[in-house]
Amino acid sequence: MYIVCLDVEGVLVPEIWINVAKKTNIQSLTKTTRDEPDYDKLMQYRLDILKENNIKLKDIQNVIETMEPFEGALDFINWIKERTELILLSDTFTQFAKPLMKKLGYPTLFCNELIIDNDDNITGYKLRQKDGKKHAVTALKNIGFNVFSAGDSYNDVNMIKSSDAAAFFKPPQTIIDEYKDIAITNNYEQLRDLISKYV
Amino acid sequence: MYIVCLDVEGVLVPEIWINVAKKTNIQSLTKTTRDEPDYDKLMQYRLDILKENNIKLKDIQNVIETMEPFEGALDFINWIKERTELILLSDTFTQFAKPLMKKLGYPTLFCNELIIDNDDNITGYKLRQKDGKKHAVTALKNIGFNVFSAGDSYNDVNMIKSSDAAAFFKPPQTIIDEYKDIAITNNYEQLRDLISKYV
Repeated sequence: MYIVCLDVEGVLVPEIWINVAKKTNIQSLTKTTRDEPDYDKLMQYRLDILKENNIKLKDIQNVIETMEPFEGALDFINWIKERTELILLSDTFTQFAKPLMKKLGYPTLFCNELIIDNDDNITGYKLRQKDGKKHAVTALKNIGFNVFSAGDSYNDVNMIKSSDAAAFFKPPQTIIDEYKDIAITNNYEQLRDLISKYV
Repeated sequence: MYIVCLDVEGVLVPEIWINVAKKTNIQSLTKTTRDEPDYDKLMQYRLDILKENNIKLKDIQNVIETMEPFEGALDFINWIKERTELILLSDTFTQFAKPLMKKLGYPTLFCNELIIDNDDNITGYKLRQKDGKKHAVTALKNIGFNVFSAGDSYNDVNMIKSSDAAAFFKPPQTIIDEYKDIAITNNYEQLRDLISKYV
């Protein structure tokens, strides 16, 4: 039986940090895993910027509250849930994800947690485990599932390579050039057609 | 981070086979995992009865379509989903579960599959794996989650024992007598109070 695993940012909702960068007018926050494949480096870079600019958790949550899932994202995940099981795999944080998950009907999400101090500063983060998306896929395979996965970015490559079937979704050109053997989809219709072969 | 795993029949929806027994007037189908802890024995017993009585998949699905989740079940799982992640762990089958999962907003469900022949007879079943509930809990723990689980029956004991925290939900007296070290809850309010200590 196939289960579907989807990345969140770039697939179902916009990149959270890019939106925070826009609303706070801090250009340096626009960097994502598309640009910096080393996640720890990227996060430390972001936390340093937040500290310099005195940006609190609530400031970021206020931005996220104004964000909407991509057009068609809710219909797309409902289509999957009617057919098989769906688990979202993301490197984002529970404190950021909740308002967007509410708008998507609270699909099951495996992600990470921020560490917040008493003054509402984001002082660090706690990964559930290193390379969590890949290990989640492996765990699902170990309990008897076949896994179809899709994501848009460098931090999805190990997840995709560990899956029984997979595709990129609207990846940047650098990824298209680098991973020529992985299927590319550019909209929900194409991804739905591909998933239909397995569920 | 705690994830919640719940058994389905007896916790969120009525026992499917008991309802099939009532509607088909076949008293021998009332046996469940509460009465027969050996799941393979129980399933073979059920399949033999279906064959003898010429009961097709569609007949059972018609019964399931008339069933409703327990009062308060939808609110209860929505309460969990707003707070943390939820995965339902069941020994039922995808072909049986779908109408009930629809009524519960399609929560993520790990269960099994029936084997159906061309004449719509249920000829067998395919377990995702032996002792699937327990292995699902172990897999979730291995990818960095703490697990809270709850179930009502013998086939939940290994899941419960593998979890970081757990409770029985409205178990039969035989289970209460046999497993005195496991917490007992008798309604959603009590279970919610207990889960609140972890999420």
